[in-house]
Amino acid sequence: MIILHTIAEVRRYVAEQRAGGKTVGLVPTMGYLHEGHLSLVRQAKEQCDVAVMSIFVNPLQFGPNEDFDAYPRDLERDARLAESAGVDVIFAPGVDEMYPDGGGKSLTYVDVEAVTETLCGAKRPGHFRGVATVVTKLFNIVLPDRAFFGLKDAQQVVVLQQMVRDLNTPVEVVPCPIVREPDGLAMSSRNVYLSDEERVQALVLSRSLRMAAERVQAGERDADALVAAVREMIQEQPLAKLDYVQIVSMRDLSLLSTLDQPALLALAVKFGKTRLIDNIVLDI
Amino acid sequence: MIILHTIAEVRRYVAEQRAGGKTVGLVPTMGYLHEGHLSLVRQAKEQCDVAVMSIFVNPLQFGPNEDFDAYPRDLERDARLAESAGVDVIFAPGVDEMYPDGGGKSLTYVDVEAVTETLCGAKRPGHFRGVATVVTKLFNIVLPDRAFFGLKDAQQVVVLQQMVRDLNTPVEVVPCPIVREPDGLAMSSRNVYLSDEERVQALVLSRSLRMAAERVQAGERDADALVAAVREMIQEQPLAKLDYVQIVSMRDLSLLSTLDQPALLALAVKFGKTRLIDNIVLDI
Repeated sequence: MIILHTIAEVRRYVAEQRAGGKTVGLVPTMGYLHEGHLSLVRQAKEQCDVAVMSIFVNPLQFGPNEDFDAYPRDLERDARLAESAGVDVIFAPGVDEMYPDGGGKSLTYVDVEAVTETLCGAKRPGHFRGVATVVTKLFNIVLPDRAFFGLKDAQQVVVLQQMVRDLNTPVEVVPCPIVREPDGLAMSSRNVYLSDEERVQALVLSRSLRMAAERVQAGERDADALVAAVREMIQEQPLAKLDYVQIVSMRDLSLLSTLDQPALLALAVKFGKTRLIDNIVLDI
Repeated sequence: MIILHTIAEVRRYVAEQRAGGKTVGLVPTMGYLHEGHLSLVRQAKEQCDVAVMSIFVNPLQFGPNEDFDAYPRDLERDARLAESAGVDVIFAPGVDEMYPDGGGKSLTYVDVEAVTETLCGAKRPGHFRGVATVVTKLFNIVLPDRAFFGLKDAQQVVVLQQMVRDLNTPVEVVPCPIVREPDGLAMSSRNVYLSDEERVQALVLSRSLRMAAERVQAGERDADALVAAVREMIQEQPLAKLDYVQIVSMRDLSLLSTLDQPALLALAVKFGKTRLIDNIVLDI
């Protein structure tokens, strides 16, 4: 496995692979890898000849009061894990390489409307603009055939699928299942922020999602009642500060009051300064 | 020369050319071709093996009170002219092919800031958003090595160069000189709107630009004085309705009060409902 830091190098590498007739899969990450990321790599290796992993903590997708500076970084550890999962090349650019015109800013943005206006999009203004912009840049740099994203960020997957469709981007966005700890906590680089006590109480996220899914299986179709039950269960945990619980259409992320179509139950909860998200697809 | 109407067909065509080792040049147009467009084709043929011309009147870049419906269209005539200039393939999609999600709308936009805020950008809100979005789509569909744009739309060239730099788009934007009628009028598809009387008075655009350039050659460095002289000359024509006259930096299109760097003198003038633009680079 090799590690490249410049756009020119990764372009050259990919061009050589393509000239040899190989297909290219991209796994965009912000590093501090966990089993969720590694499952994306395994998908990429299954579907493509070459797996490129980008590791870039993108300032554009963090709000002014968010954890850009504190976000955990450890390239050495990431490189070991990436290699063990089968990554062929890591692209790890600095902020100046990706935003040469000064301090993590850009004059050009990719804006996706509508599907960015609920869930995390409503709570993190500019977040998905930053995601859509950096993913467009990464696609233009790496020119992958396919790109692999985890469904823990379900809204991100929907936003990027919309973007790719609208802009005719020649990349297939492949959604991959959420990977969880044995006790149910969805894997996240931000889990390292949690104290022992918060870590225990954070189990309420997956527990409340399972509870809701069971009620749906038992026949519940009232989205508001489901949301209320989830809210109540989460609020029983003294350290949990609810950010949102919403049930939305899988198609366009519009809010649902009745489960009459494939739906996503998504939530965000804060423990201290740590904001965790999780979700489940509600099959009817 | 062949004419293709679907994205799938043009993708297949270009992929075959590329597989044969050929380079691809794109000339994006809204049709109703004139000598200006054909000069872009000749540039494309000089620099690339294959010349693709897109012909698409893009609803996204027209304002609600602009001439989208009235914009002149004649694909048969365009095809003859394009073939004579050396075009290999015309890509002429319908609105539904480019915007399948309904009526010439998109949920995803490419926004370029700063350089879109002066000149035509200030007068035509949303225009450059529409241009940047459709050009991104055309680039993603055709995947050209180079794309050729006329400097009559100088701001468009600057906006697209900024976009390509910011998004790492793997396409070189090639600016090409303005082509003029023998009497000086810059070629434009909109010139057909002009009455005989308007056509004569419209010569004031190029005449006033030449006058300003001569004053600069003679030593004038006061941008406000130059703008005032141009305005005065244009306002002598009774049918001319001035939209704007501005002198801006060639680098970032910021307004200049003194000519201390490469500058662009750009103007827009209305004759009846017809809005004409023209510009000149002021060398110092």
